[in-house]
Amino acid sequence: MQKPTWVVEKERNKRLTALETFWIFGLHAVRDALLNPRRTKLRLVITKNAFDRLADAITGSDLIVEITDPRKFSVPIDLQSVHQGAALEVKALDWGPLTDLAAVSSGAAPVILLLDRVTDPHNVGAILRSAEVFGALAVIAPHRHSAPESGALAKSASGALERQPYLRVKNLANTMETLKSMGYFIFGLDGDADITLMEALGDSIGPTALVLGAEGPGLRDRTKETCDGLAKINSSGVFGSLNVSNAAAVGLFAVTNR
Amino acid sequence: MQKPTWVVEKERNKRLTALETFWIFGLHAVRDALLNPRRTKLRLVITKNAFDRLADAITGSDLIVEITDPRKFSVPIDLQSVHQGAALEVKALDWGPLTDLAAVSSGAAPVILLLDRVTDPHNVGAILRSAEVFGALAVIAPHRHSAPESGALAKSASGALERQPYLRVKNLANTMETLKSMGYFIFGLDGDADITLMEALGDSIGPTALVLGAEGPGLRDRTKETCDGLAKINSSGVFGSLNVSNAAAVGLFAVTNR
Repeated sequence: MQKPTWVVEKERNKRLTALETFWIFGLHAVRDALLNPRRTKLRLVITKNAFDRLADAITGSDLIVEITDPRKFSVPIDLQSVHQGAALEVKALDWGPLTDLAAVSSGAAPVILLLDRVTDPHNVGAILRSAEVFGALAVIAPHRHSAPESGALAKSASGALERQPYLRVKNLANTMETLKSMGYFIFGLDGDADITLMEALGDSIGPTALVLGAEGPGLRDRTKETCDGLAKINSSGVFGSLNVSNAAAVGLFAVTNR
Repeated sequence: MQKPTWVVEKERNKRLTALETFWIFGLHAVRDALLNPRRTKLRLVITKNAFDRLADAITGSDLIVEITDPRKFSVPIDLQSVHQGAALEVKALDWGPLTDLAAVSSGAAPVILLLDRVTDPHNVGAILRSAEVFGALAVIAPHRHSAPESGALAKSASGALERQPYLRVKNLANTMETLKSMGYFIFGLDGDADITLMEALGDSIGPTALVLGAEGPGLRDRTKETCDGLAKINSSGVFGSLNVSNAAAVGLFAVTNR
């Protein structure tokens, strides 16, 4: 019997994902990745000078290390990237199933962040930093129209990419349904909402998920419909809006300080 | 009688500042600047296509407009800049004296933000957006080691640069003393502080200023000493820290929602 098309496609995508690699660059980001035992490292291209500064972190028998002349430093990263003579080819992290990560235990109420088509790696990097600081269990984005793990994202995340679970899922609305079934109450941040986040949070103390959309388009219709409630961050004026990473930080602060 | 050296120097600096111009680029940022009556506009370099899209905003008899071929578009901005065929040479805005801007009136308690050596224009741009959203009376930075008004800053500020007072002062500590004499209580955000910002704010309801330092070095010693109190944004873990613009947004949210 032939496998159904969707099974074939799923297996194919899985194989392709396993093949996908990207380059982390810059002394700090490369060091963080080298020291992360969960990170699959493939190839390190590095100048002698940078090697000396990272020597303590460069271990692991599977890692191919290529010492290179600074003038011949050549890896497939953006020409403008400040690589500081160090670039590491890696695979994206595997954080395991969401249902494990998001499991509700008896401690403080868990918080999860969902990003609906936030594509800028600098914003997503800053968001991962905030998610780590405020103890979010995971940051979740759809596979399509989001920012994959990348060197630019790693740099903006300033180490948080190695520590903060960042999951990309096939369908955000389905994932939201899963979270709801696990006991999460999901707030969508929406500038047009009738109430503020503080009002919406009220006396709620349970597991909470926040969804943020891209600047401009905001949340997609299906995302909005799947939320338990919509709320805005109170603004003093008629002009202006927060950068998406700033909105995420404020949202996480509000939820974890209610 | 000869003028004292410091007077000569002050006058010279004033003349130099008056000569200083910079280029705003990109359709949105150029439109915002064109529509700002407070903004001194000198020269617009623009493609025919971009001109048609901005025609309604292009007025003012003093403005020199140069329609240019897209392939010959040449203005002194970074080559990587996404200018969309529009670049406008302008002067920095004059917001008048701080004592006027920061005047304490009978309404809601005013909030002011001070930046101690935050040099990244993208961060300062995002901070101006947050300052506008949360109604800060002004964002203040020292002349040296800060981000001057620039095209990159304007773009990150997404319009807020035209509306949100952004002042650069000679000496940040002296300005803090001025604010204190006007009745402001000044909190420095410092990761090593003993108490959280929420604890520090307590039941305070008066005029408040927040000071943030650059990521890494943080607040300078003199800045710290001049604060009325130091506070940290509570973090759940031992690793990680907020991006400076995210810390500013959280700080402003905390002060305006106490």
